Amino acid sequence: MSHYPRSILDLIGNLSKLPGIGEKTAERLAMHILNAPEKEAQALSGSILQLKEKIRLCQQCFGLSDADICRICSDPNRDGTLVCVVEQPAEMVAIERAGGYNGQYHILQGTLSPINGIGPDEIRIRELLARVRGGGVQEIVIATGTGLEGEATAAYLAKCLGELPVRVTRIASGVPIGGDLKYVDGVTLRRAMETRHGL
Amino acid sequence: MSHYPRSILDLIGNLSKLPGIGEKTAERLAMHILNAPEKEAQALSGSILQLKEKIRLCQQCFGLSDADICRICSDPNRDGTLVCVVEQPAEMVAIERAGGYNGQYHILQGTLSPINGIGPDEIRIRELLARVRGGGVQEIVIATGTGLEGEATAAYLAKCLGELPVRVTRIASGVPIGGDLKYVDGVTLRRAMETRHGL
Repeated sequence: MSHYPRSILDLIGNLSKLPGIGEKTAERLAMHILNAPEKEAQALSGSILQLKEKIRLCQQCFGLSDADICRICSDPNRDGTLVCVVEQPAEMVAIERAGGYNGQYHILQGTLSPINGIGPDEIRIRELLARVRGGGVQEIVIATGTGLEGEATAAYLAKCLGELPVRVTRIASGVPIGGDLKYVDGVTLRRAMETRHGL
Repeated sequence: MSHYPRSILDLIGNLSKLPGIGEKTAERLAMHILNAPEKEAQALSGSILQLKEKIRLCQQCFGLSDADICRICSDPNRDGTLVCVVEQPAEMVAIERAGGYNGQYHILQGTLSPINGIGPDEIRIRELLARVRGGGVQEIVIATGTGLEGEATAAYLAKCLGELPVRVTRIASGVPIGGDLKYVDGVTLRRAMETRHGL
């Protein structure tokens, strides 16, 4: 690659640090940027800096936000009495994308993981309890992962929240819609049988 | 996507203008940049701007450069008596990558294409002739494409250069190395026969 001028090599190097972008792709992107209008390159460059400058955690739900209170928390059309607890912003995005949920969120920023030294004080559990104590929340849907750590976190949360005047629910586990029963793993199947519901 | 804050949406929008980057990939890249160290994001953003600011055409060969004279033209180890004429920087890169060539280049920035209104004055032919007239060049290897326009440009260059005291050669066309003769198209085969050489 040494036949490229320094500035091109720099950009190729920086682009290829991105996930899924190899050197060849980085080269193609750099050439595109070189030939793109000045304004387009400036917009791209600027939006990278803006992102790092502006994005912070919402002070209520700890989701990604570019204001002190995020768009979902400040949206008067969303149901503030219903709060869904997830591990990371990505899970919030998945639920939003699925549609149908009109409550608010609480993003823990992790799961309990004693082996990694992550206890209740390292994730946003205290803030969740304070939020419930503050009043106005009627139901907490725990939507942490269904792995070991997600389940442990859910159990811990259920215990803490049990002492407060709030309904605590867990998002359902079971057979995926459209999934073939014979290919579903045993743990999921057992859980799906245990949590069967009336029709 | 509207659940993302504005700054994330902006970056996703700008990233997805790049070739081969769809909205999903742009989203993944934006999330990576969000979680990457501040310095990495600044480096990426800065190198995009640097590229647009610094890259210009070399005043001798019209290749991409970040100085008035590019690295190849100013490299004392390269043979300045041998100049390879190509259409675009990408072809120069291909020849450099292949290795084995130690001369300099002249990048025309296009091919003759009367139908598109591109005549000899629209590409860097005058500058090539001036460079040869300036002295020091002993051989010009014409490596324009082997399509219609590349061949026409090669023929025109050969005519112009024929009046000057310089050896004019054409990069060989023929059967690709490792290629199967029976799959090579007729035009290429005929050319390969015509330009056969002694062993």
